Amino acid sequence: MPLRVHYELALAKGETGPGKASAIAREQTVEMPPGVSPAKVERRTIGAVAAVEELSARRARVAIDYPWRELVSDLPQLVNLLYGNISLQRGIRIVGIDWPAALVAQFPGPACGVAGLRELVGVRGGPLLAGALKPVGLGTAELARLAADLALGGLDLVKDDHSITDQRRAPFRERVLTVAEHVARANRQTGRSCLYVPNLTGPVDSLGQRLDDLRDAGVRAAMIAPLLVGLDAVRALAESAGVALVGHPSFAGSLVAPRQGFAPELLFGDLFRLVGCDVVIYPNAGGRFPFRLADCRRIQQRLLAPLGEMRPAFAMVAGGIDAAKLRRWLPEYAVDTIFLVGGSLLGRPDLRAAAEELSRIVAGATRRRGDR
Amino acid sequence: MPLRVHYELALAKGETGPGKASAIAREQTVEMPPGVSPAKVERRTIGAVAAVEELSARRARVAIDYPWRELVSDLPQLVNLLYGNISLQRGIRIVGIDWPAALVAQFPGPACGVAGLRELVGVRGGPLLAGALKPVGLGTAELARLAADLALGGLDLVKDDHSITDQRRAPFRERVLTVAEHVARANRQTGRSCLYVPNLTGPVDSLGQRLDDLRDAGVRAAMIAPLLVGLDAVRALAESAGVALVGHPSFAGSLVAPRQGFAPELLFGDLFRLVGCDVVIYPNAGGRFPFRLADCRRIQQRLLAPLGEMRPAFAMVAGGIDAAKLRRWLPEYAVDTIFLVGGSLLGRPDLRAAAEELSRIVAGATRRRGDR
Repeated sequence: MPLRVHYELALAKGETGPGKASAIAREQTVEMPPGVSPAKVERRTIGAVAAVEELSARRARVAIDYPWRELVSDLPQLVNLLYGNISLQRGIRIVGIDWPAALVAQFPGPACGVAGLRELVGVRGGPLLAGALKPVGLGTAELARLAADLALGGLDLVKDDHSITDQRRAPFRERVLTVAEHVARANRQTGRSCLYVPNLTGPVDSLGQRLDDLRDAGVRAAMIAPLLVGLDAVRALAESAGVALVGHPSFAGSLVAPRQGFAPELLFGDLFRLVGCDVVIYPNAGGRFPFRLADCRRIQQRLLAPLGEMRPAFAMVAGGIDAAKLRRWLPEYAVDTIFLVGGSLLGRPDLRAAAEELSRIVAGATRRRGDR
Repeated sequence: MPLRVHYELALAKGETGPGKASAIAREQTVEMPPGVSPAKVERRTIGAVAAVEELSARRARVAIDYPWRELVSDLPQLVNLLYGNISLQRGIRIVGIDWPAALVAQFPGPACGVAGLRELVGVRGGPLLAGALKPVGLGTAELARLAADLALGGLDLVKDDHSITDQRRAPFRERVLTVAEHVARANRQTGRSCLYVPNLTGPVDSLGQRLDDLRDAGVRAAMIAPLLVGLDAVRALAESAGVALVGHPSFAGSLVAPRQGFAPELLFGDLFRLVGCDVVIYPNAGGRFPFRLADCRRIQQRLLAPLGEMRPAFAMVAGGIDAAKLRRWLPEYAVDTIFLVGGSLLGRPDLRAAAEELSRIVAGATRRRGDR
């Protein structure tokens, strides 16, 4: 079974749907003008245009079948085939990918998935609630105090802000050990299993040492930004790290900007899950990022939909969520959703009480519309 | 000295230049609404809007100074600070970066640079000529034959196509050993030092083994696509690999698409050089990629311009260059340019003779306009 990729094309003057589709099929494989490569090489290597639908004089939808077994040796090469050279052209957006099961099987996918993460936080059903430790610039002790309050307030996860990595006021190892200890102490008090998710994003040659730090701290999860460290670094981590991975969307936005890149559900749904994210963070609609609710829901659907033998992954929706908004957004998503509450919560004078209020709202939520 | 970043902003209805600049300064650092973080943390951490120029009701140019010593612990965190969360917003493009020397000094930059690469190819002055081994789908023996012909024809470098990695018809180690041997044999015949540049792009956890393969083959250079393996994987390689690195632009295009991301000279000039590319490949104007000559020249200027203590890097301009076009493009670039001739050369019946013809054109070139 070939890898079928669906594109939406914006056609410039002089371009046609069939012409641009053929050019893509060639650019992404042999990358040679017609007639130069030996015909037998082209026959086995080049993409085949499977469908062309001209939506208007300026827009077309096309599908190309790629003989991926001849082309894809690894994850970077898969990404290269999907959107390597054509990223440098204009008006090409990937809007669908039909994954062959044998191709999917080459990549790790989530090590824990939805069920594994639920085990880690000890919550069998219903949406989960996460908080963030920030801002960057706080010292280790201050971050640890925030973490303790959030854990005591009943949150299921507390994560480092993505800008907190290894700065001098809160160096990685010291921070992870200290925050983990504070969260563990809070858990002993509440009887719950709030999960601390440190930000593992950092130099690729430090990841091994940082995983050792996580183990020393008894930490079972880590956040990483796949586009900051490289999608393949996450793939490699997922194969051996032994912690749940929470993918952060930093630096990924260009790839989902209009009329190019990927439909958001393919990048944050399929690709982030393929490389091994158990949880994928992305901006919620209605916040300070231009994500539409339909896109947000589609990302989640792809995270939960069948993908080879891969485990489903959690969506963690983020950005501008407070108590009032939580009530509005809860019914829009599936039950396997983590709601991330950030700055609005940290602004409350009694942090623990504010966290408790939000926890009650989430705990009271039942299966609703998003869960169909 | 702060890190000053210059942005060009497209303003949506209701947005103002000063307002959007403040929002960016906050989003990229504390990522909290005003009034939530302790004032003393904000004072030392948040970006400071240094300039706002409203170009029209819909466009502004702004500059923000970031206290990078509080924020940047490593390369992924530098990229996060530059274009992490704001990549997910709209109408923000980085058009200038004023680099503090102390920040630049934290990154490797080119290990060889222009002078080191000239030593490897044994050509002291004038532009260089490179050819590509392709298409993917050819076997090792066929690729080695192409390499030998191109080396005998006088090319200075022959590189693998970026889609050739570790496919079964030309597995990495076998290919590198065989092609290197053919190029070495050609070099003994010509007395020249044509440099074979295999495509090292691959799984990040295979790069160590592949570097060993390069050493076994006596290969002194490698191509890698920073956005496919991660910018930081290239940074780590550059610090220890001991081969010249040729950066390929695959998957980087979204970051230089209009009205977002980076001006091309900042991504392909500054960032690729900062992480350690000795040579940066990018599309030439007038080919099948929408790059303007002014952008192409600016990328080269940044590769050669002072950047801390870093060595200058070679531009390798690519895409649709044949004999006629070579004469047209030679005078447009600085003398430290590598011209990459791909498919058009491979289509010629006598490959060696065609390579010789191009080599003569390049060898005849003297310092021209681009070199001012």
